[in-house]
Order: sequence, then C-alpha cells, then structure tokens
Amino acid sequence: MFKFIKKIILLTVGLSLWFIMPAAAETTVSAEVGFIFNTFLFLVCGFLVMFMAAGFAMLEAGMVTSKSVSVICAKNIGLFSIAGIMFWMVGYNLAYGIPEGGYIGKFIPWSDASSLNKPYSDGSDWYFQMVFCATTVSIVSGTMAERIKLWPFFLFAAILSGIIYPIVMGWQWGGGWLASAGFSDFAGSTLVHSTGGAAALAGAILLGPRLGRFTKTGEPAPIKPFAASSIPLVTIGIFILWLGWFGFNGGSQLSMGTAKDAIAVSTIFMNTFLAGAAGVMAAASVTRLVFGKTDVIQMLNGCIGGLVAITAEPLMPSPLAAILIGAVGGIIVVYGTKFLLSLKIDDVVGAIPAHLFAGIWGTLAVPITNPESSFVSQLLGVISVNVFVFVVSLIIWTLMKNTFGIRLSKDGETKGTDVTETGVIAYAIRD
Amino acid sequence: MFKFIKKIILLTVGLSLWFIMPAAAETTVSAEVGFIFNTFLFLVCGFLVMFMAAGFAMLEAGMVTSKSVSVICAKNIGLFSIAGIMFWMVGYNLAYGIPEGGYIGKFIPWSDASSLNKPYSDGSDWYFQMVFCATTVSIVSGTMAERIKLWPFFLFAAILSGIIYPIVMGWQWGGGWLASAGFSDFAGSTLVHSTGGAAALAGAILLGPRLGRFTKTGEPAPIKPFAASSIPLVTIGIFILWLGWFGFNGGSQLSMGTAKDAIAVSTIFMNTFLAGAAGVMAAASVTRLVFGKTDVIQMLNGCIGGLVAITAEPLMPSPLAAILIGAVGGIIVVYGTKFLLSLKIDDVVGAIPAHLFAGIWGTLAVPITNPESSFVSQLLGVISVNVFVFVVSLIIWTLMKNTFGIRLSKDGETKGTDVTETGVIAYAIRD
Amino acid sequence: MFKFIKKIILLTVGLSLWFIMPAAAETTVSAEVGFIFNTFLFLVCGFLVMFMAAGFAMLEAGMVTSKSVSVICAKNIGLFSIAGIMFWMVGYNLAYGIPEGGYIGKFIPWSDASSLNKPYSDGSDWYFQMVFCATTVSIVSGTMAERIKLWPFFLFAAILSGIIYPIVMGWQWGGGWLASAGFSDFAGSTLVHSTGGAAALAGAILLGPRLGRFTKTGEPAPIKPFAASSIPLVTIGIFILWLGWFGFNGGSQLSMGTAKDAIAVSTIFMNTFLAGAAGVMAAASVTRLVFGKTDVIQMLNGCIGGLVAITAEPLMPSPLAAILIGAVGGIIVVYGTKFLLSLKIDDVVGAIPAHLFAGIWGTLAVPITNPESSFVSQLLGVISVNVFVFVVSLIIWTLMKNTFGIRLSKDGETKGTDVTETGVIAYAIRD
Repeated sequence: MFKFIKKIILLTVGLSLWFIMPAAAETTVSAEVGFIFNTFLFLVCGFLVMFMAAGFAMLEAGMVTSKSVSVICAKNIGLFSIAGIMFWMVGYNLAYGIPEGGYIGKFIPWSDASSLNKPYSDGSDWYFQMVFCATTVSIVSGTMAERIKLWPFFLFAAILSGIIYPIVMGWQWGGGWLASAGFSDFAGSTLVHSTGGAAALAGAILLGPRLGRFTKTGEPAPIKPFAASSIPLVTIGIFILWLGWFGFNGGSQLSMGTAKDAIAVSTIFMNTFLAGAAGVMAAASVTRLVFGKTDVIQMLNGCIGGLVAITAEPLMPSPLAAILIGAVGGIIVVYGTKFLLSLKIDDVVGAIPAHLFAGIWGTLAVPITNPESSFVSQLLGVISVNVFVFVVSLIIWTLMKNTFGIRLSKDGETKGTDVTETGVIAYAIRD
Repeated sequence: MFKFIKKIILLTVGLSLWFIMPAAAETTVSAEVGFIFNTFLFLVCGFLVMFMAAGFAMLEAGMVTSKSVSVICAKNIGLFSIAGIMFWMVGYNLAYGIPEGGYIGKFIPWSDASSLNKPYSDGSDWYFQMVFCATTVSIVSGTMAERIKLWPFFLFAAILSGIIYPIVMGWQWGGGWLASAGFSDFAGSTLVHSTGGAAALAGAILLGPRLGRFTKTGEPAPIKPFAASSIPLVTIGIFILWLGWFGFNGGSQLSMGTAKDAIAVSTIFMNTFLAGAAGVMAAASVTRLVFGKTDVIQMLNGCIGGLVAITAEPLMPSPLAAILIGAVGGIIVVYGTKFLLSLKIDDVVGAIPAHLFAGIWGTLAVPITNPESSFVSQLLGVISVNVFVFVVSLIIWTLMKNTFGIRLSKDGETKGTDVTETGVIAYAIRD
Repeated sequence: MFKFIKKIILLTVGLSLWFIMPAAAETTVSAEVGFIFNTFLFLVCGFLVMFMAAGFAMLEAGMVTSKSVSVICAKNIGLFSIAGIMFWMVGYNLAYGIPEGGYIGKFIPWSDASSLNKPYSDGSDWYFQMVFCATTVSIVSGTMAERIKLWPFFLFAAILSGIIYPIVMGWQWGGGWLASAGFSDFAGSTLVHSTGGAAALAGAILLGPRLGRFTKTGEPAPIKPFAASSIPLVTIGIFILWLGWFGFNGGSQLSMGTAKDAIAVSTIFMNTFLAGAAGVMAAASVTRLVFGKTDVIQMLNGCIGGLVAITAEPLMPSPLAAILIGAVGGIIVVYGTKFLLSLKIDDVVGAIPAHLFAGIWGTLAVPITNPESSFVSQLLGVISVNVFVFVVSLIIWTLMKNTFGIRLSKDGETKGTDVTETGVIAYAIRD
C-alpha cells in the first residue's frame, strides 16, 4: 500500500514538473534557478576575464624597458576603458544584431532586454562579452610598445573594439556566415586571440622596430639595452592571465544551469589548466635542450601559447589531448619568436607568436578532438578572420600614419615614452 | 482530455508551490535555494572586496617614495587585520544593533544567528560588511603616509573601524535615523568612501605636509624627490580595486536568489564598469587637453573617482548616465588634487579627491537617476556623515598628537619610515 | 475549508518532495541543484587556490635577493605545471583509489566519472584537489632558493606531487589508515602545509645554507647582502595567499548545496579571516615589544602562520578561538624563524616556521574546539605524516645529491641563479 502511494505521488509530481518547466527536457532545474546559475556564471567568469586586463598590463609593463613602463600602464587602463565604452555604444549590437548567416549587425547601443525567456540576464552577457572584446585590444598594445604614440593607439583601440572585433565576433558568435559555414571556435582562439595578433602584426610591420633593435646586418641587437624591466611583474601577469582563462573558457560554456553544464565547465577548467601547464613545460624543455638555458620568458609566454591553443576547443579533448595541444602551443611560441626576429619584426612582448600563431594552431586542431568540426571549415575561419583583420588594420594604421602619424619622434623615443608622453617616470627607487 | 489533466496538474502544483514558499511572491525559487544563492553572493563579492585591501596596499606602495614602501605594506596588512578584529568585537552590533531611527547600537561582539528565516547566513553578512569596514580604513592610510608613526595610526584604525564607521554605517544600513530621513547610499559613496576621506582629511591637516613638500612660497616642490616609487604597482593596485568594486557594488544588492536580483546585479556590474572606464578617460582627456601630457597617475586615480561616484547608486542609471556620473568623478579627481595642493594639504596618494570629493558628487547625483531619493535628503546625509566623521577624527588625532604624538621626528622622516619604523628596506635591487 | 485545502496541498507536496529527493534528509534542495552548487563551490574555491600559486611566486620573488628572482619565477610557474600534470597522471588515483583504511592507491591516470549519484562533478573535484597538491610543492621552492639547481628541483616537484603528497593525502582524505585512526585535518594543516614544510626542511638540511649566510662563528651574516629584493611583492603575495585561503578552507567543506553547508562555509570564511588577522597582529606586537621594531616581514609571514594554524579546523572554533589559534601561529613564526637560524638552517622565505611549525600547532589544537577529535590521534597524524615525508624526501634529495647533484657551483651561486640558470636578469631599471 505504502509503495503504491509513493509511486502515485512520484508520478504526479514528476508529471507536474514536466509540464511546468519549459526547458526541462534534460534537467530538473527550474527555469528561474537555471537563469540565476547562468547569470552567476557569466558574472563570476566575467570578473575573472576582466582581471586579465591587469594581467596584460603587468605582462607588458614587465617586458618593456624601464623607460616605457608608465605609458604601458596608461595604455592598458585606457584601452580597457575605451573598449568597454565602445562595446556598449556600438560593438554589442554590431555583433549580435547580425542577421542569420550575415556579415554585420546594427549600429545602435546595447540596451537591456532581460527576460525569463532568455537563459541569462542580458547585462551579464554584455559584461562577459565586453571583457572578451577588451582582451582582444590588450593583445595589440604590447607588440607596438615603446615607439607608438599614445592617442593614435587609443583611436585604433576604439576602432578595433567598436567595429573590427564585433564584426568577426558576429560572423561566428552572432550567428553570421562563418557559423553557418560550420566554423568552430569555442572561446575564441581565432575570434579573440588571432584577431588581436593579426591587428598587432599589421601595426608592427607598419611601425617598424624600435631604434637600434636590429643591427645593420639584421641581427637582433644585444639583449641588454632592451632587457625586460621586471620579470616578477611579467610572472604575476601570466598567473593573472591563467586565472582569468578559467573564466574565459569556462564561461564560454554559457550555461551552468544543469548538471550536464556543470560537468562541462569542470572539464573545461581542467583542460584549460593542463594546456597552460604543458605550454610552460614544453617551452622550458625546448629552451633548455636546444638553446642551453631554461628561458623564463619563454616559459611564461609558453603558458599563453598553451592556453590560446586550447581555447578553440577546451571541452572535447581528453586530458592527454589537452596536454599535447598545449605543448605544441608552447613550442610554437618559442620558434615563432625566433621567426619574427628573423623577419626583423619587433614584437616587444611576444604577443604575435602567443596569440596569432598559437591561435591558428589551436583552431586548426579542433577537428582532432571534435568530430562535428572539419579541417576545411576551420581553415576557412582562420583565413577569413585573419586576412580581414590584418587588411583592415593595415589600412587604418596606414591612414593614421599618413595623417597625424603613429610613431614618436626619434628624440622622443630615445628619451623614452614615459618622459615624452606621460611625464611620469615608472620607477623612482633610491637606496 | 489531456489538456484538461495538464491544466489541473499545473494548477495543483502552482498552488502548492505558492503555499509552501513564504517569500515566493515574485519568484519560484525556494527559500533554501535562495538562501544559498544569497550567501554565495556575499561570499564571492566579499572575497572580491577583501582583495581590495591588496589593491590599496599596492596603490599606496607605488605612490609613496621608495623610503616609505615597507611601512605602507605593514600599515595596510595591519589595518586590515585590526579592522576585521574590531568589527567582530564591537563594530557589527554597533551598526546593526541600532534601534529603528536611532543613533547607535550595542557594544557586544557579533555572534552567529543564522536561520532559514533570514535571507542569508549571518556569517556571510558579517564577512561582507567587515570588508567594507576595512576598506574605509584603507583609504586613510595613504593620505598620511611617510610621516605618521605606525602604532598611533593602528590605534586610529581600531577606533575608526570599531566605533566611527559602525556608527555612520548604522545610521543608514542599520536602519538608523539617516535611513528614516530618506537618505540613499546604495553601496557607500558617503558611508564608506567619504567616511574614509573625511577621516584622512582631518589627519592630514593636523599632521601637516611632508618635510620639503611645499616651498617657502607655498608652491609644491619639484616632483623628483617625491616621485612615486613604482607606477606598475599603482596600476595593479587600481585594477585590483576595480575588480573588487564589482563585489562592492554588486554584493550590495544583498540578494541573488531571484531572477530579478540576478538582473539587478548584472546591471550593477555593467554600470560599475562603465563609470570606472569613464573616470579613466575623463582624467586622460583633461590632463592631455588642459595640461599637455596624459597623466597616468590621474588616469589611475580617475578610475577610483568614477567608481566612487557610481557607488551611491549603481543600479538605476542607464549606461550613458553611468558614464557621465563616472566622467565627472574622474574630472573631480584631477581638479580636486590641484585644489588640495593649493591649500598645502599633502595627500600622498590622492585619496581625498578620489574618495571624499567624488563620494560627495556621487551621493548628491543619486536623485538624477533615482526618483525615490531627494536632493535634500542626500545633502543631509553628506553633511551629517562628513561633519561627524571629520570632527570626531580631528578630536582623536588631536588627543593623540598631544599625548604620545603622531608624527615621526625630523630625523626619522628624513631617514624614511622604512628605516625608522620597521627596519626593512623595501627594494634591494642590484644590477 | 480553505485552510483545510491548503493543509492537504502542503502535505501532498511536502510528501512528494520527500520521496523524489534521495539526499533530501536535511534539505529541500533537489539533487541536481545541489550538484550544481557543490560543483560551483569547487570551481570558485579552486580558482582561488590556483591563484595562490601566484601568491607564492610573488612572496618568494620578493624575499630572495635580486640575483635569484627570475629563477624563482621559473620555479614557481614550472612546479605548478608539473604538479598539475603529475596529479592527473598519477596523484589523484593514488590518493583516492586507496582501499578503506589502506596505505596507497592505484597508479593510473584520473578519468572523469561524473554522475548525478555523486555530490559534484568529478572534474571539479580533480581541479580543487590538484591545486592543493600544487600548493604543497610551492611551499618547498622558497626554502631552497638561491642555491638549488632548477631541474633537480623540478624532478623533486614531480615526485612530491605525483607520489609523496598523494600518499599522505590518501591516508586521510582518501579514507586510508589515518582517517580510520580518527585523525582530523579539515583542510590540510598537516597534509598540505606540514608536508610541504617537512620536504623543505629535508632539502634545506641536505643542501646547506647560501654561501656566506652564516659567519664562521655561526651567527647569521649581516642582513644587507641577503636583503629581500622587494617588500611590496612579498606583500601582494601574502594578500593573494590570504584571498586564496578562503577557497582553500571554504571549499574544504566540500558542499554548498544546503543552507547548513552555506552557513558552514560562511563560518569558515570568517574564522579563516580572523586567524590570519590575529597572526599578523601577534607578529607585529611581538617584534615591536620584544625586538624594538615592527618587522613587516614577520607580520606578513605571521599572517601565513595564523592561516596555516586555523586550516586544520576552521569550522568549529568560535571567532575568539580562531583569533587565539591564529595569534599563536603568528608567534610561532617569529620564534620559529629565530630557532632555525640558531640551527644554521637557511630557509630563505621562512616557509618552515610558517607551514611546518604552525601546521603542527594547528593540528594539535583541533581537540580544543572539536570534541570529536582526540589529542592522541592528532599526534599520531602529525608524527606519521611528518616523519614519512621528511624521511622519504631526505632519501630522494640524497640520491639526487649523490648522482647529478642538487647544488649550483660556487661560481654559479656567486653570479646568481638568474645569470647561471635562466640567463635572464630580473630587474633592468634605469633612471
């Protein structure tokens, strides 16, 4: 008798729950609780990604010479501010207001349209997407350090965050033509990292290297005058970026409202960690075995390479696959850095190898672990995004170069950007 | 027939849910799940605000000269410890034990009284409120750097965190007379930031400027001997503070247990970000256009100004309004700094413009976007809190000055606080 | 009539909920929502603990002399990477694959076995446990700084994280013999902190002090040549560790899926804060009263001492008890540091007093507040873990010393590890 009643009650409640929950197909979690979890995920992951701005600032401040540190700080807090304002004013709806399979959205500011019919609050989505946009711009700032003028850089930051990035973002995450073409980029190896890297490459080519960076015979100058100002600052920057990457990739699951999603986010955390770790140790091993000393800078940048590589697909790989994908990312950073030097391209912080090269690798590696993607679609995405961003950036940098100019005067560069641009020296340390 | 059964079941379950949930008026989330969400919000936002202590420490360590950096570190970790212990021992019940419309609570230690009838766990509330209290004290430490004695400062920190701050906190957030008078201060532009700023102003006036800070004709001395020791440390400090501010303002919604609250917290995150960003760029633009160079220190402090300004009302403003409120905060920092210098008040880190002046602005700006507040009530709150804190602080600083003294000897100040007070030099860097 | 219907409905729904929820004994939260909360707790607390790696890196970078900073950075990011990979490959199943009451688990890689029958996702548990493992290794790196070779250290890191730590972890948290014997160590005062400290002690003894650290008469050499390179870096390191500790202890509740658990996590946050605060002020007071100056380094390390002490039992103590336990931890750090110096053991960062000594204190103090533990069981755990770790570590360090060697050449040490090992100087600051 008792069992019978139990069964009846179970059946009744089960049926009831089934009917009242619109999204209840695979979960027993109510729509509102799911809404809160998803929003919470965006806010928590969003603040982790927001903090990456500090990571980039420290990474770059540590990598430049001590006469350009204050301006790097100004650039990083400035670009973050500009990117956020532009992404509100134009970017968000340019990306998400795109017609299905289309190329570009609407030029109108974001406004809140939260409702329980959406899986999360609109504002939390804006916040999470905005910090991605800011990350893209952060990548550019380091490459061109020590010789670019501050305000032309800010103008480029506004265009990149308000127009260029939102367009490529919309192609994929807004449901545009690239998504329709079957491209797969979970958290943005291409959309975020390569975009930043390609824009930086265009700028670095047009801007030219720092004075004296390469000798007349084309060799890199001795390290000393270009030595990184502070390795511990670079290190804390990398740790902050690594921390932020859990939000970057984990939040890109876009949902924490079911047990299935919670499991997925956990897997992403794990793979993100392992790929970064493998990038570090791959760079450590290669520099030690091939070049004699264990290069701490390459270890730190190798971490970024590993993280960028796993970003295109952090969910499907097994732990071992994540390690291998990350390790290749780390090795790409080491040899990519040498490759750029051989081309006499002066990438002050090594952002192009870490974000562009490793981003290409990570994107092309998706089909290895994700059977729903194809190499051809991945190649299409890599080429279209990188060519688009590179060409548009090159045009903009050229326009700026030929009007108000983008490079400091020789005298200004010799004095250092800190004296010339902001008038605040970075370190005043007396014994 | 099927539809009929569905309707009946829906009705039954709907009705049942209605009856079993006491707080279910606007939400389908059960009391216990809501309790967990709210508590989780406090803990997450609380650790973000806790980390602001590190932000203040770095901001101040970077802004002082290199002979006072170790002591600033000691002061910041010390005041945080003292504030927390005092807030447990006295502060919490002094603030929350206040009778409705009253002036002061009870002098008894906090003890846990968690129950499901409360919206969140008592301990999480204590934790969240405690880090606010610590923030108030952090604001004071930078202004008076480089010439105040360590232990008198610690004593003041104990009084501020145990007595002064809890009293003004109770006036409003404890349901005291200021709340009854219709004052509105969402996350503490006045209660936290102006309180810290007003206490610092009282101290700075009584303590006097650093030796040689102003020439005999009253002009500020050349920058060099007072140059900030490390701009990147200031920068990471500001980024940490910005990160923490999402917890500061977001957590002040006090609830994450309904979709409505989740939407509100998201809006707060967004407005908090935009106001800070606007503060940065307003300060950048003003210093560039008016004074010639883009002052990185003003950009960084402008961020704080923008954040403090939005803190009184981060929920109601539209994104554009948040930008404008923040921008004015940033501009106030730039001119407020000049104003203080013209008065020969030596505020080493610029805390008074950023926290007191921008806090007044933000509080008075509430009625612009929040129709439930009034300018008169806001003015009443600003005046009562600031006058109370300033006068009580002045009395305490005066008492200390005339007994054991608050200022280092000339010799001690010349050697630097690090040598005199802690015996540990801050930087030992050899080439 | 209405009341009667209400009662019936309440009864029906109440009964139904009772039957459909397997884990519903003390909670109304459904299994799936609980699963998400628990997983979320692990991920959030996990990233906080992950960030502790940055804290250790900065703490150690700031404490070593400026000619060993780059290598400390390399060591910290390297050991974190190695620890994580080893913990996936061997460690996790060595700890959790242990038979009940047993001594050692299985040598197989972790693989995801998430299911709703578990309280949280498997991956989130791996992530959370992994960062604990990495913390253990971090503790070792600072003690042996400035004279140990990089790759032998990495090898030891692999063994410690892959074998030694997982074994002692399994003894207790895997349900091994120590758990059966009634040992109690909530978040790892002994399992994590003493383990790290004991391994460091074995290494420091075998490695010997830095050249010139002690005079021929056995006194410590004058501070100057061994002065900490950067106090603000140490400070931000400590603040990051303190932040991370909320995750370390709070996440060790292992559950956030009921109101009861949410209350417990809140209590843990509070006690963790208070113990750290008490450690700071105890060290400040003792150094000021006994030795004349308020030693900022001891305040910072005193914070760690307080935090380590509360880690064995952060839930049961009252706030006052937490303060007392933390204060004793802080005092132990001050005198423990002097004690090690008197033994001519050169612990560069003070990890042994903070982690080993304070860990022993915290573990033995558990019975004071937790009636379910006993002093005998605690002593058994302290002795067995520390002796096991110390002896095994000593054997491994000895084997390495007698094969490829663990110490830099005299010439290499004099030049500094940065020049010798990584070829990257840490600071290149020009006026």
